[in-house]
Amino acid sequence: MDPTHFETHPSRYRHWKLKVAGDTATLIMAVDDTFPHRPGYELKLNSYDLAVDIELADAVQRLRFEHPEVKALVITAELDRVFCSGANIYMLGQSNHSFKVNFCKFTNETRIALEDASANSGLGSLCACKGTTAGGGYELALACDEIVLVDDGNSAVSFPETPLLAVLPGTGGLTRLVDKRRIRRDRADVFCTTAEGIKGKRAKDWGLVDDVVSRSKWDDAIAARARAIAARQTVARGPAVVLSELAPKISDRAIRYRHVEISIDAGARTAELVVKAPDAPPPAELGDPRGGPELADVWSLRAFRELDDALLRLRFDLPEIGVVTLRTSGDPKQVIAHDEALARSTTGFAREVRLLQRRVLKRFDNTARSFYAVADRPESCFAGSLLELALGADRFYMLLDGAEAIAVSTSVANQGFLTMSSGLSRLDARFYGDPARVQKILARGAEGAIPSEEAEALGIATIAADDIDFADELRIAVEERASLSPDALTGMEQSLRFVGPETLETKIFGRLSAWQNWIFTRANSTGEHGALTLYGQPERPQFQWKRT
Amino acid sequence: MDPTHFETHPSRYRHWKLKVAGDTATLIMAVDDTFPHRPGYELKLNSYDLAVDIELADAVQRLRFEHPEVKALVITAELDRVFCSGANIYMLGQSNHSFKVNFCKFTNETRIALEDASANSGLGSLCACKGTTAGGGYELALACDEIVLVDDGNSAVSFPETPLLAVLPGTGGLTRLVDKRRIRRDRADVFCTTAEGIKGKRAKDWGLVDDVVSRSKWDDAIAARARAIAARQTVARGPAVVLSELAPKISDRAIRYRHVEISIDAGARTAELVVKAPDAPPPAELGDPRGGPELADVWSLRAFRELDDALLRLRFDLPEIGVVTLRTSGDPKQVIAHDEALARSTTGFAREVRLLQRRVLKRFDNTARSFYAVADRPESCFAGSLLELALGADRFYMLLDGAEAIAVSTSVANQGFLTMSSGLSRLDARFYGDPARVQKILARGAEGAIPSEEAEALGIATIAADDIDFADELRIAVEERASLSPDALTGMEQSLRFVGPETLETKIFGRLSAWQNWIFTRANSTGEHGALTLYGQPERPQFQWKRT
Repeated sequence: MDPTHFETHPSRYRHWKLKVAGDTATLIMAVDDTFPHRPGYELKLNSYDLAVDIELADAVQRLRFEHPEVKALVITAELDRVFCSGANIYMLGQSNHSFKVNFCKFTNETRIALEDASANSGLGSLCACKGTTAGGGYELALACDEIVLVDDGNSAVSFPETPLLAVLPGTGGLTRLVDKRRIRRDRADVFCTTAEGIKGKRAKDWGLVDDVVSRSKWDDAIAARARAIAARQTVARGPAVVLSELAPKISDRAIRYRHVEISIDAGARTAELVVKAPDAPPPAELGDPRGGPELADVWSLRAFRELDDALLRLRFDLPEIGVVTLRTSGDPKQVIAHDEALARSTTGFAREVRLLQRRVLKRFDNTARSFYAVADRPESCFAGSLLELALGADRFYMLLDGAEAIAVSTSVANQGFLTMSSGLSRLDARFYGDPARVQKILARGAEGAIPSEEAEALGIATIAADDIDFADELRIAVEERASLSPDALTGMEQSLRFVGPETLETKIFGRLSAWQNWIFTRANSTGEHGALTLYGQPERPQFQWKRT
Repeated sequence: MDPTHFETHPSRYRHWKLKVAGDTATLIMAVDDTFPHRPGYELKLNSYDLAVDIELADAVQRLRFEHPEVKALVITAELDRVFCSGANIYMLGQSNHSFKVNFCKFTNETRIALEDASANSGLGSLCACKGTTAGGGYELALACDEIVLVDDGNSAVSFPETPLLAVLPGTGGLTRLVDKRRIRRDRADVFCTTAEGIKGKRAKDWGLVDDVVSRSKWDDAIAARARAIAARQTVARGPAVVLSELAPKISDRAIRYRHVEISIDAGARTAELVVKAPDAPPPAELGDPRGGPELADVWSLRAFRELDDALLRLRFDLPEIGVVTLRTSGDPKQVIAHDEALARSTTGFAREVRLLQRRVLKRFDNTARSFYAVADRPESCFAGSLLELALGADRFYMLLDGAEAIAVSTSVANQGFLTMSSGLSRLDARFYGDPARVQKILARGAEGAIPSEEAEALGIATIAADDIDFADELRIAVEERASLSPDALTGMEQSLRFVGPETLETKIFGRLSAWQNWIFTRANSTGEHGALTLYGQPERPQFQWKRT
């Protein structure tokens, strides 16, 4: 299979047009139906697939870094009567289960990133739905701060998934209806089972949209709302930094970036992921509100963008790799110096980088692979932001070396900013209900590196073993893990990783997605006579009637 | 299929022995392997099936009502080397998907009821594991306040589900490990993938058990802990009331109790559930700490026990009934009088009845059927505790009658005691984030009945229609609902019903169970070469390796 490319650029977009004018950006959905992600279906009526969503994710990311002047994002469409008809049904019908699940996960992450930009980066959003807004199209709208629907007697918002396709609106829609927009659950029930959707005054009365506007007043109303959104932003971004190209080198055996590398052992169904520390101190420009040319390639940004790309490739292109060992390499002091410089900087750019690190680490938490972090070499550097990888991994193996050269270090990055989707830091989640232990570790970490033996005693290492046992113990653990059922492991890891409080995000990934995954396996949707399989064909779906 | 009987009595138990001595009850698991719930497997090694769990649920319920003197419950086993080996694998392997899911849901509810008895009813619990404690056996232990494991060099607690069966510990185990017992997630990961489990000091150090005790000191240690548990209880129950027999009349067309009736239309895959109001005022004995003979049959207890039984029969014995219309009949003033008398009473019995009502309504929320509450007759009485059914239903249809005879009423029962598993009252959930609206409704309700039109305006009714339209609108809505895919509806309803905060309970039903349901549909567990299918046979399971 050809590798999936998650990097793109506005100059190469096929499905969106990005226009920036003053403090407002307009992202126009104009899906080219002849360029699907994989051949076999047409992207009619502004329906989307992975290719379309990769561009959306790129656009939002670039606005955050490259266009700090933009305070309002208007998402709209080029078609006159259709905003977006949702995820392409034929694409879903043709895709295997694993792809469907990973596609939904990615689109969910993109929508959460849009909300994150509004909540934390002074980039408000407005969905201007000048036409039919169905399924995933309305889910995209729900991820915006405001939704305006055209009042033309015809255009509706709708979730036809359950009545027409026997699946859920799985991109956060159900959760956002009741938890975010606080639509009454009984009305949400009516809405979600009414294929044709709800339009006009009723859509506004029920809270499905914030306003309905006639075609004649449309442009003025949207412009006025965008101005109001821009005016109320209080967080400033910048200086502007153009995201550099990652351009990994990809072979069957490895994916190589500047700071990140995945080595693949297809036969064993394992991979090794290595993240390298910065090899130079952070640039002085990091604290300079005027910015500078080195920022685009600053380690804290580049390494985490590479990690993000690597995780996506792992999910989509290496589906049979079940266990990933995760090592770090380099000087822990440089990692800490970068973390501290980033936290000290008062620029919007520095905050954006930290927010990006947080999103990437959340993507890591939500990646359905077993991760074993391993510190077994003197060059290991699980420090600060890289220590988060060890804390987020399912297990952390540390070698007990006589010289105490192998150690972990904390930095400001472990003190609470890099929260999981539950809202807890990874240290808080590890010692759930025992905040004193977290404080003890942070206090100890402030004094210097924590060698393996002490790290185990403090509860940071899962397993520490000496030279005689370490290699065998790790090898057996990886082999055993790789021999277990991937499905059971996914369910188990999802349950153990997300201890404690739940949020909109954890509800979407842990509850809504789990139900959708289940439904995707059921004959009523994806079986031979299932509704998703037969969509667009004359044959009516046949359902099994047992309620489960 | 023969109907499933959820009623039993200690005198008829086949799998447990209940001994009451002073303030301590001992519930001894002594599974008779020759009496499974359905023929086809043997309940070896204290493994359990639905029949075993029905007795457990009965025992805990009876202790609450019939033995108010009991303050500590010790759960143990008759076998010497095995406490409990979990849910019977052959039973799971033979069961269809729908039964498996409903079995897990029931066992989860039973374990939550055990925790509820400890949290709210002064009935603490201790699991005395004098032998192997595996899978569902350890999940039962996790539902107790304390766990003691015998230290004999051999007995371990374990979750072999993932490594041996390619499924999850699905009876709340994963959630309770990290959220309730706060075991470090990386250690939980090791534990859940180590089939042989963890024993002795390590089990205690990791927090998997509260203590390990040698065989020689066993009896004394357990007795001392039971005494300590009893001594620290502060909530008093009583007066004692013996639960009366429900003994419904069951036919193919209906299930009839004194206050509850289900009428079945198998062809349409619909049912009508009617709950009748009390026909007499509450007995004076309700407020009397000495109790009296009328308490066993007091409406508030009997009607909700009947509803509980009816919901279980609906789940297990009527799997193809997708839509249930829900009506009430009688004098709303009598319902309110009973609710008020119950709330006013200071006896432990009255509190037990309210807690039972709460559990039954939670069972209703977690029942995977579409519920449409309907108020279309003058005798309709959605008042107080019965109004909760309308608020918990997916929709509430009200007829607009000119005479304003059709109305809803509130009582003390709607003010917050009858919480959903999210911890919200059904009114709070309905108007999530808008507490002023809840207060407005309660204030209006205090003034008297709220007729349909006003109920709609206040947001209580989903749909109100007049005589000309009502019957057709309801008929079409029911037919449409019954035509949709049952699986998609289950996922949709689970997502919309549980708005707002999450708790251990909602995590178990919404997150853990959803993952388990998904895993149960996957070839790696239940396929021809799946681990659950092949358990106990020489053939090794064959897995599909894609990670999803």
